Amino acid sequence: MNFANIIDKKKNNKELTAEEIYWTVNSFVNNSLKDYQMSAFNMAVWFNGMTPTEIASFTQAMIDSGITYNLDGVDGLKADKHSTGGVGDKTSLIFSPLVAKFGIKVAKLSGRGLGQTGGTIDKLESCPGWTGEISETRFKEILNTVGISIMSQSSEIVPADKKLYALRDVTGTVDSIPLIASSIMSKKLVIPADSIILDVKMGSGAFMKDLDNAIALSKSMITIGKEHKRNVSVMITNMDKPLGRAIGNAIEVKEAWDTLNGNGPEDLIELCVTAAGLTLVQNNVFKDLETAKVELNKVLQDKSAAHLLKDFIEAQNGDFNVILDYENNFKTKYTIQILAQNDGYLSFASADQLGYLSMHLGAGRATKEESIDFAAGIYLNKTSNEFVKKGDVIMTLYTNREDIDNFKQKAQELIVLNKELHQEELILKLLTNEDV
Amino acid sequence: MNFANIIDKKKNNKELTAEEIYWTVNSFVNNSLKDYQMSAFNMAVWFNGMTPTEIASFTQAMIDSGITYNLDGVDGLKADKHSTGGVGDKTSLIFSPLVAKFGIKVAKLSGRGLGQTGGTIDKLESCPGWTGEISETRFKEILNTVGISIMSQSSEIVPADKKLYALRDVTGTVDSIPLIASSIMSKKLVIPADSIILDVKMGSGAFMKDLDNAIALSKSMITIGKEHKRNVSVMITNMDKPLGRAIGNAIEVKEAWDTLNGNGPEDLIELCVTAAGLTLVQNNVFKDLETAKVELNKVLQDKSAAHLLKDFIEAQNGDFNVILDYENNFKTKYTIQILAQNDGYLSFASADQLGYLSMHLGAGRATKEESIDFAAGIYLNKTSNEFVKKGDVIMTLYTNREDIDNFKQKAQELIVLNKELHQEELILKLLTNEDV
Repeated sequence: MNFANIIDKKKNNKELTAEEIYWTVNSFVNNSLKDYQMSAFNMAVWFNGMTPTEIASFTQAMIDSGITYNLDGVDGLKADKHSTGGVGDKTSLIFSPLVAKFGIKVAKLSGRGLGQTGGTIDKLESCPGWTGEISETRFKEILNTVGISIMSQSSEIVPADKKLYALRDVTGTVDSIPLIASSIMSKKLVIPADSIILDVKMGSGAFMKDLDNAIALSKSMITIGKEHKRNVSVMITNMDKPLGRAIGNAIEVKEAWDTLNGNGPEDLIELCVTAAGLTLVQNNVFKDLETAKVELNKVLQDKSAAHLLKDFIEAQNGDFNVILDYENNFKTKYTIQILAQNDGYLSFASADQLGYLSMHLGAGRATKEESIDFAAGIYLNKTSNEFVKKGDVIMTLYTNREDIDNFKQKAQELIVLNKELHQEELILKLLTNEDV
Repeated sequence: MNFANIIDKKKNNKELTAEEIYWTVNSFVNNSLKDYQMSAFNMAVWFNGMTPTEIASFTQAMIDSGITYNLDGVDGLKADKHSTGGVGDKTSLIFSPLVAKFGIKVAKLSGRGLGQTGGTIDKLESCPGWTGEISETRFKEILNTVGISIMSQSSEIVPADKKLYALRDVTGTVDSIPLIASSIMSKKLVIPADSIILDVKMGSGAFMKDLDNAIALSKSMITIGKEHKRNVSVMITNMDKPLGRAIGNAIEVKEAWDTLNGNGPEDLIELCVTAAGLTLVQNNVFKDLETAKVELNKVLQDKSAAHLLKDFIEAQNGDFNVILDYENNFKTKYTIQILAQNDGYLSFASADQLGYLSMHLGAGRATKEESIDFAAGIYLNKTSNEFVKKGDVIMTLYTNREDIDNFKQKAQELIVLNKELHQEELILKLLTNEDV
């Protein structure tokens, strides 16, 4: 087995054997295959793609580079969820109680955030004491008692992906469908959930800039799932708008709680109910999505799933009372109201830039070493497609940092007031196991 | 200027600006662009190629990474020659006197060999004292007095190419026409010769495995030449056969000397006369190749160019007497005759493998650190397409190494005796300035 033959096959679009793919991934992980060789391989994949068989081997080789979990002893069906990341995306915190309410357990690994979007782990740490660093045994106990548990992704999980992603990021090979699909799926397959719902974000700031590519990525991930006996569904959603009205950490947990208590923003409800609905259909709780959505909306109205968010956070040692008494626990030195300077239909220059503003307010990390200010963030008093009048409060910034004038200016730069309404769908396409 | 944008353009087949190409090459040379980024760039070039404008910029950026020479004060027209490397290729040693005989000066940089083929510098060092490490001033003096000078390629010449080639070699990007063309031409353009003749080898062991690719490479190099005001001609030749009968170092200088004295093997004569003929036509000494070849064959018969080889070697401090009294100066401990085990038309499994055998006998270097045994090598008593009878001596191995049985076995493995003659052309195609 040698790299010269392998790269030659990939360049000339010949299918690699499972052995060749395992050798490549393993050699890269143990440093006998050098970064400069792997980056050439990645670029050849960028051009020639991978066959479904190659992708399956590549994904398995990535999984095998680290530890995996079993769910032995956890009763019933288990669901997992993943999003490719969006600004204001607190879907997991609403999705999980909704699904658990119907007896399907949510067993999930989550990561921290870097750059404009905070990770689910960061958001949950707003509740003092909450930890994702729990043992496999404790993870299973919480799944059996509460029905929801979220573990922090450790460096022992799919180390090949971490190393590969860092390389792709600086060598122009991030936007390769087989590499994205295997990266996402390898991390999902570490836990043997029966069903997986994936939220693939599409838009100017996302990996996937058009619907054709987003569909191709989705189908590739569903195929990987099939080969690993997992039922995968995909929602392709618009990431050009922030999701909900809260952007930050504690403020997003609060918005999730409010949503579970019948008081959520429309777009967030639509996304969470669809994701949960697809999951319940995958697990045969309901026979179609429409029925599932009707029942899930009822659960939001009667607030009967809300306690599951609290129970799960408390089971992982978090103090949920800080969210119940939000105002007193997450005060910031500055509260800045940003006003409309004209009339018009509101949109934002980019959701990404709102995320970066939130990061600068203290809610995110520019580097791994930075710590997060859980109270910092943005509340959108008005959001995309609303008509605003000059002088209306469009958003409120919460920060403990001093750079007020700069924050104000950046916020103003993000506001676009249009003469006409440009309404876009939030959910662009749904794909299930039956679509590949 | 940043790599992310540049790699994105190259991936998506958009033409890079001269500034972007210079930035890439310069950043790679000064290590601010990492090997793993350059290898991704090279692979993108492998897939998408380069436009003639990009190739011109890339070649110039490579040249500018090191020193260049001028030929100010050297009278008359100057010619240069390059071969992509073949087993038994001592063409330069015959070509140079033939061309100089007609008043065209041969100003050339040469390299050492690594692997199966020895370099011209190694072969010339068979003459004790000979050195290619001469100053620019001395180089010009010898050109004015003898008409031939060959300088060793130093590490200061096109350092970008050396670094790039080492990377391409281990990342599957050797066989890229724009990268080969710019690599070869950058090293040729360091000396301002008026004409350049290139011998592009084609065959199973060569970069170029088919005629279409060899023609594409040739045209690319002629185009680079045009953009630098150099008249470039190309011979595409068969490298599946060894050239001449001698493979080694001193033994090849001896064969060159014999050829210049009217006693050379047919294939070697054909190649040298064609190369020299094309050069004399490029420089308007003769108006067509046929006339030039007739005159050059006369020079070989009347031996009138031979002294130029001796004069040039002596001018660079080499003792040429060792070649004149070859038998007494290049004795080896072992002389091994390899006999035909059957009747048949002779061919060799591969010319490359003959080269490797010669290397194992001591005539080449497996690593840069190894020294060369100038007396070691192979003499082909019979060569490709000759009919041999069982018991005939096919080749004679000269070595000071002890591994005799192994050498015998390897030599036998290379001999193929066919029932029918499979004659192939040596010179497959000629291309000049007018073909692009």
